[in-house]
Amino acid sequence: MDVVETIAGVRRRVARARAEGLAVRLVPTMGALHAGHVSLVRAARADGGCVVVSLFVNPTQFGPGEDLARYPRPVEADLAACRREGVDVVFHPPAAEMYPDEPRTTVHVSGLTEGLCGAHRPGHFDGVCTVVAKLLHIVGPDAAYFGEKDAQQLAVVRRMADDLNVPTRIVACPLVRDADGLATSSRNAYLSGTERRQALAIGQALAEARRRIEAGERDGRAVAGLVEGRLDAAEGVRPEYVAVVDPDTLAPLGRIGPQVLVAVAAHVGETRLIDNVMLRGLGQG
Amino acid sequence: MDVVETIAGVRRRVARARAEGLAVRLVPTMGALHAGHVSLVRAARADGGCVVVSLFVNPTQFGPGEDLARYPRPVEADLAACRREGVDVVFHPPAAEMYPDEPRTTVHVSGLTEGLCGAHRPGHFDGVCTVVAKLLHIVGPDAAYFGEKDAQQLAVVRRMADDLNVPTRIVACPLVRDADGLATSSRNAYLSGTERRQALAIGQALAEARRRIEAGERDGRAVAGLVEGRLDAAEGVRPEYVAVVDPDTLAPLGRIGPQVLVAVAAHVGETRLIDNVMLRGLGQG
Repeated sequence: MDVVETIAGVRRRVARARAEGLAVRLVPTMGALHAGHVSLVRAARADGGCVVVSLFVNPTQFGPGEDLARYPRPVEADLAACRREGVDVVFHPPAAEMYPDEPRTTVHVSGLTEGLCGAHRPGHFDGVCTVVAKLLHIVGPDAAYFGEKDAQQLAVVRRMADDLNVPTRIVACPLVRDADGLATSSRNAYLSGTERRQALAIGQALAEARRRIEAGERDGRAVAGLVEGRLDAAEGVRPEYVAVVDPDTLAPLGRIGPQVLVAVAAHVGETRLIDNVMLRGLGQG
Repeated sequence: MDVVETIAGVRRRVARARAEGLAVRLVPTMGALHAGHVSLVRAARADGGCVVVSLFVNPTQFGPGEDLARYPRPVEADLAACRREGVDVVFHPPAAEMYPDEPRTTVHVSGLTEGLCGAHRPGHFDGVCTVVAKLLHIVGPDAAYFGEKDAQQLAVVRRMADDLNVPTRIVACPLVRDADGLATSSRNAYLSGTERRQALAIGQALAEARRRIEAGERDGRAVAGLVEGRLDAAEGVRPEYVAVVDPDTLAPLGRIGPQVLVAVAAHVGETRLIDNVMLRGLGQG
């Protein structure tokens, strides 16, 4: 496995893979790899070719007062995980390599970024889209892999790639839960034992929403009300939003159609968590 | 010469050139080709490989009340010019091919777009950057060729390409003047004979600015004042702005250093014209 810290270096490495006739796969991450990231790497490996994982805690997607400084950066453990998973190239640039100057260019997706997390994290998705565009330009992959855990990010990145004709296939991979039902997240490391137990109420509320929808509930407001009620009743959980929306357009669904995203953000202690249930191919209910 | 109207078609054509080991050159234009465009094509051809010219009047870079509807579209003459110049591929998409949905994604460059033309054409450079990003993603060229005539556009596109790590070299080509000294522009076609004679004052004022700077003038405000005075005195010319700025950052220059851009926009009749003088490698004066 090659660990590369420069843009020129990773381009050379990818060019070598291309010269060998290999397709190139990119798994963009902020490191602190967990089972969700591993599932992305495995999906990339299953598609064949040269698998590149980027580890970069992108400062431009953190707002003032957010957790940029304390975001976990267990680099040695991340590299070990990449080795274990058969990753070919790790791109691990310092911030000055990615942003040598004060960046002036922003990629903005309107419409999909105003609600949900976007309403509470102004500028976050501009930072995400811009760094994803940079990584796609640097690595030039055939496909890039994103988790459905970050459902709004996935919708926004897909829309950006479509609108800008980015020649990379955006591949979505299912949300991964730990054995206790908590959605995997690098931020779970912030939780105390008590907080982690309290946080389980989020996944349980969403599981109940899934059961109700699968049983035929099609009233979006009723589903949102159900989840809100569960979260309001849960000790230690302070819900930020509950959204019942189309997973592609993120438009609110009064009436649930063939596909739905039920998305939640909530604070547990000092930690902000997100979780969701995404259902496609639903019948009439 | 292949004329291609679809994104998939031009990608296939470019992939064929790549498979033959050719480099790919893109000359993005809005058509109505003139000697300035021809100079870009010749620069691209001189660099070797497969030369792609795009002809696309991009609606998103026109503001309300601007000349989108009447912008000249002499497609047959443009194709003939491309054939004459040995172009390999013309990409001539309909608007619905470039914008199948209401576009939501915008590429914005801050700092370089607020002044000069940006102050008078809100949203123009967002439209330019976004369509250039799309064209670069569609064609995937090794190099793309832009005229120094559109000096602010060049600076903005360069900055975008740098900030986003676009893997395409941005090549600048000198402004081209007609025999009477008027800077070549597709919009010159709007001018009556009288207006064209009146418009020559713009290039003459800039030529005088160039002489003064080459003779050692380093006071940016004095140069701006000289050009403003000439334009104010010129019959039929209504100056919009005169800027003496750094050609890369577009920051105003009180004191002219090693490089300078003197840029003008002015209305002659109903037609808005831009022109400039760009000087690099200047001594101390």
